[in-house]
Amino acid sequence: MPGKNRIRDLRLLHQKKHREEQQKFLAEGAKIIPELLLSGFPVEEIFASQRWMDSNQKAIRENKIPFNVVNRQEMESISSLSTPQEVLALCSFPKEEISEIEGSDLVLLMDSIRDPGNAGTLIRLADWFGVKAIFASEDTVEWTNPKVIQASMGSFIRVRPHYVNAVEWLKSLDKKTGVFAADLEGDDLYSTNYTGSGVIILSNESRGLSTELEPFVTRKIHIPRFSKHDQQVESLNAAMAGAVILGEFCRRGRIAG
Amino acid sequence: MPGKNRIRDLRLLHQKKHREEQQKFLAEGAKIIPELLLSGFPVEEIFASQRWMDSNQKAIRENKIPFNVVNRQEMESISSLSTPQEVLALCSFPKEEISEIEGSDLVLLMDSIRDPGNAGTLIRLADWFGVKAIFASEDTVEWTNPKVIQASMGSFIRVRPHYVNAVEWLKSLDKKTGVFAADLEGDDLYSTNYTGSGVIILSNESRGLSTELEPFVTRKIHIPRFSKHDQQVESLNAAMAGAVILGEFCRRGRIAG
Repeated sequence: MPGKNRIRDLRLLHQKKHREEQQKFLAEGAKIIPELLLSGFPVEEIFASQRWMDSNQKAIRENKIPFNVVNRQEMESISSLSTPQEVLALCSFPKEEISEIEGSDLVLLMDSIRDPGNAGTLIRLADWFGVKAIFASEDTVEWTNPKVIQASMGSFIRVRPHYVNAVEWLKSLDKKTGVFAADLEGDDLYSTNYTGSGVIILSNESRGLSTELEPFVTRKIHIPRFSKHDQQVESLNAAMAGAVILGEFCRRGRIAG
Repeated sequence: MPGKNRIRDLRLLHQKKHREEQQKFLAEGAKIIPELLLSGFPVEEIFASQRWMDSNQKAIRENKIPFNVVNRQEMESISSLSTPQEVLALCSFPKEEISEIEGSDLVLLMDSIRDPGNAGTLIRLADWFGVKAIFASEDTVEWTNPKVIQASMGSFIRVRPHYVNAVEWLKSLDKKTGVFAADLEGDDLYSTNYTGSGVIILSNESRGLSTELEPFVTRKIHIPRFSKHDQQVESLNAAMAGAVILGEFCRRGRIAG
């Protein structure tokens, strides 16, 4: 059982500053943990209820890391969730491996995405749609944020944003790479001519595309509004727009071969 | 200023039971309220900070309803949000107008969608994509739930689910109406032959399509997973699946004419 000091130390990881200093973060939830343990992800320690321990004997035998029993009150202290689950993992930051981008790849760039639910959902979508890599501007919420982890489900195990200076990163791309930005003023997603590869920039829906990224955009695209109502419909948020756009890029990518 | 009893009565509307008894609900937020007031939606009363009142004089003059100034503490008592906004509306349930479904319409059926965030997002998507109507099984979260209202943004003003016995409703449809259910075992969304009209059933992603609805389904469809990772990717949630599927139906609907 973890002592008071240990619990306090774990709680520090609710804060970005401490996660970055220690290069550690917490992942929570009965769905994510078994997947984490099977994946080879750098899990350091598990904290779980006795009940979870009893029904996960195999995982405990096969993983040479400490499994700590905690009671409900301790779990509530450690957890960042308002309704803590039965199990929580202390993980190290995995080694960052940045993949080389080729012309035929599909890549996501998160531009100033602050909402953790949207960021996590985009990671999950990128995972589903087989995006080669995710890059993110430095002011995008960090993927180790507890709400991003929750929203991404286990997808952060397979695909994590690389935080970059977005301008410098776009500059470094091969000039032939198409750069598409979701933008209300853009061309129609469904009528525009493109092959389904390139970089898709998704921005914070209230701020729109960051001005400094504009010069690098090959084409702005927008999801046509099919509604017949006269009134202004609030634009789709970054996660919903990502779902629709990634679907269409993948459909085209498959046709293109 | 509302007294203690009035605040208590308003708070009762956080609960489904009281909303249904009184046929009233609360809508919150500085983005939603101006839209509500312009829309002709049955708003009964407004509760707002002095600051909001000061900068919304035109709305106050043009709407013949009570505008009540509340202080921060009173707003915190009335609001269902953890971080209350500056304005909140007491609304009546609008008259329910159920549209006749024709063969060329696109209609959404929410099957046991319990998560308010997903339900609200689906309402917002249905609004964007111009879906003719939304129907919902009786065990779907009610659209007047505060979290549904928040997630739908102002879209509930234009498109609201009709709660029905889903089996009876499906039985009542013209036999020529295509009924598509999002299902992991379904045909490929992008390769399947359909025109972009009909009923799309979106189910609770952890339970899947409700068994009693199966006999009415013309075709199950699924969003292909493009990921090259071996590991199981958690399936997309109902809202994300809805975004991708509605996008593709609308794209096809436009091609079909």
